[in-house]
Amino acid sequence: MKTARTQATFVSPIVESRRWLAGVTFADDQPLLNLSQAAPADAPPEGLRQAMAEAVLNQTSAHLYGPVLGNEDLRAALADQMSRHYDAPIAASNIAITSGCNQAFAATIQSLCAEGDAVILPTPWYFNHKMWLDMQGITTLPLPVGEGMLPEVAQADALITDRTRAIALVTPNNPCGVEYPAALLDAFFDLAQRHGLTLIVDETYRDFDSRDGAPHRLLQREDWQETLVHLYSFSKAYRLTGHRVGAIAAGPDRLSEMEKFLDTVTICPAQLGQIGAKWGIDNLDQWLAGERAEILDRRAAIQDGFAPLAAKGWQLLGLGAYFAYVAHPYEESSDVLAQRLLREAGMLLLPGTMFTPTEAPEGHRQFRIAFANVDRAGIADMLSRLANFDG
Amino acid sequence: MKTARTQATFVSPIVESRRWLAGVTFADDQPLLNLSQAAPADAPPEGLRQAMAEAVLNQTSAHLYGPVLGNEDLRAALADQMSRHYDAPIAASNIAITSGCNQAFAATIQSLCAEGDAVILPTPWYFNHKMWLDMQGITTLPLPVGEGMLPEVAQADALITDRTRAIALVTPNNPCGVEYPAALLDAFFDLAQRHGLTLIVDETYRDFDSRDGAPHRLLQREDWQETLVHLYSFSKAYRLTGHRVGAIAAGPDRLSEMEKFLDTVTICPAQLGQIGAKWGIDNLDQWLAGERAEILDRRAAIQDGFAPLAAKGWQLLGLGAYFAYVAHPYEESSDVLAQRLLREAGMLLLPGTMFTPTEAPEGHRQFRIAFANVDRAGIADMLSRLANFDG
Repeated sequence: MKTARTQATFVSPIVESRRWLAGVTFADDQPLLNLSQAAPADAPPEGLRQAMAEAVLNQTSAHLYGPVLGNEDLRAALADQMSRHYDAPIAASNIAITSGCNQAFAATIQSLCAEGDAVILPTPWYFNHKMWLDMQGITTLPLPVGEGMLPEVAQADALITDRTRAIALVTPNNPCGVEYPAALLDAFFDLAQRHGLTLIVDETYRDFDSRDGAPHRLLQREDWQETLVHLYSFSKAYRLTGHRVGAIAAGPDRLSEMEKFLDTVTICPAQLGQIGAKWGIDNLDQWLAGERAEILDRRAAIQDGFAPLAAKGWQLLGLGAYFAYVAHPYEESSDVLAQRLLREAGMLLLPGTMFTPTEAPEGHRQFRIAFANVDRAGIADMLSRLANFDG
Repeated sequence: MKTARTQATFVSPIVESRRWLAGVTFADDQPLLNLSQAAPADAPPEGLRQAMAEAVLNQTSAHLYGPVLGNEDLRAALADQMSRHYDAPIAASNIAITSGCNQAFAATIQSLCAEGDAVILPTPWYFNHKMWLDMQGITTLPLPVGEGMLPEVAQADALITDRTRAIALVTPNNPCGVEYPAALLDAFFDLAQRHGLTLIVDETYRDFDSRDGAPHRLLQREDWQETLVHLYSFSKAYRLTGHRVGAIAAGPDRLSEMEKFLDTVTICPAQLGQIGAKWGIDNLDQWLAGERAEILDRRAAIQDGFAPLAAKGWQLLGLGAYFAYVAHPYEESSDVLAQRLLREAGMLLLPGTMFTPTEAPEGHRQFRIAFANVDRAGIADMLSRLANFDG
């Protein structure tokens, strides 16, 4: 008997790490510092909440099924916003709205791959990407990152076989935080195009990129729709994680294929998330600029405060978006240390083993720190707890 | 090159039928009668909307990620409600909340099947079940219904091979409307148990069953968790289609497997749908009883008004829940007639070909009529338009 699809993958790291919390108590002077998940901890701005409440009370369509690929007004608004951000002409027909960005990735893979096909993922990878490929009977070709935690085109080229269908990149990266240079993305696009593959670029953390203006030129290419699928999430920008709303930019024919999957797995994205995202695009540019400045300030606080940790042998491998990716100086594996850090230092962070293949040695030396919810004081506390930790 | 997963299935019938509407105009004295989709057309009751609005404005957790398997309070409330409805002890740990009932089916299949496995579906089937199996590389074993549009256990038994993993039943049935007798469900449970299969019972339309009390005894069996997965939707009961909220009742170990899939495809169900569903369970029993009475009255209106159609050779094959399933008397196939009915009679209904295998002849003779949104006057109009239609 073959293994059922879910048995082909591991327990979700987020679920697993929540289990670690069970039964652990924290001292009053050392409360839990949860650095495990990349998610806002506060409600969206009041204006957005009022717009959603108004729709709940007075707009019947907010309670009814909508189009599988999302509401027309939101598709048009995101197309317009992306056209400005990337300085490229994106049409509403290039946009689909999904129930979060994980689902956007899932739909993309379903439209590209069959059993036994292969997809290239740089490692460390985003674990839900790996889990989806596992559960679809698709082989993941791990592409270990090189200099600056960036993947290398020549190494990717060497992995490609006749069963390879796509290369999936995340920029700014989860878990490494690094922002992929425009030239690197160009080179990956060229590689994908040359081999007839699809380049998937997940820009969930786009709004917290430290670079001003378009972070890449991929959408300016006249032929982008043949090679590129672009993924986005409204969750981080407008604090809508609980409403499940993400997006795909791709050619309309691809979106029609994905529509079969989206219809069957969720029928349509939740209406209130879409209403909130639309209101956010229309009203929250300035507010979001402030959010970005705050995240960049927290990032700087980690950069500036890292010296005492470096003196103890820690390395800051990558930093950006919501994440710091670090190497520890201890003999023990990060998956053991993560549970000790929780019990002894009151910190929950995910070990590198959750982002790397089982056989890869480097994951045992690494941690992801999701710092977006922690202010400057909390970051100082976090760095101090790590520096005082007796590995 | 193998076909990508989405290419292994057909365009969603709901999407396809919406395309038929494009460019069709309707006379003032014959406005569109849309009988294609099983969905409420009105907003939920005011109390529920106010509860949701209150959460949007004042409850931070309404905007944040929740547990993958759903909020504890909703899981407990549904477990309690089901315990009463089925006169059986259901625990909160037996319940998972999903982003709609389609996703509940998808998660169940993922936890049971791998490429090349097989699942038995009575035909006419619910098309999204067939689409999911197609897109997962799973063989559908069609089980044509017999007397009273009910599947027969002996025929199902004859279809089972060593690759068969599950039998999926829908009661009250979509598209046929018929309510499966408790004894038939018992017999299917026994069959599944004897062969080590899983019996999936989708009760999306449970709240509109004409029978009072528990419609079956499956959940009263001490060993139900080894064989049964039960699916439910809050969409119809509380008019929450746009909020995407469904549920699974199963053994906790099965739910842990499904959790991998649910985390990866949506992370968590939308919070507001869960808040609405919880409020509905706590407050809407009496209101829902009125909704059920109204649907049963509309059902009676079809039964009572069918004689003129029968005189023209139409047959009422099944009736219940939101659906009438009928056979037409014409030579032309139902998929051609459906588009003529739209243009000539202003009625949108789905042809039987959308619910049956391509090679099955009976679908060409059949239609599904989703009557839930049409009041007694509308039903009279519908029956009259069909009687006057010149096939």
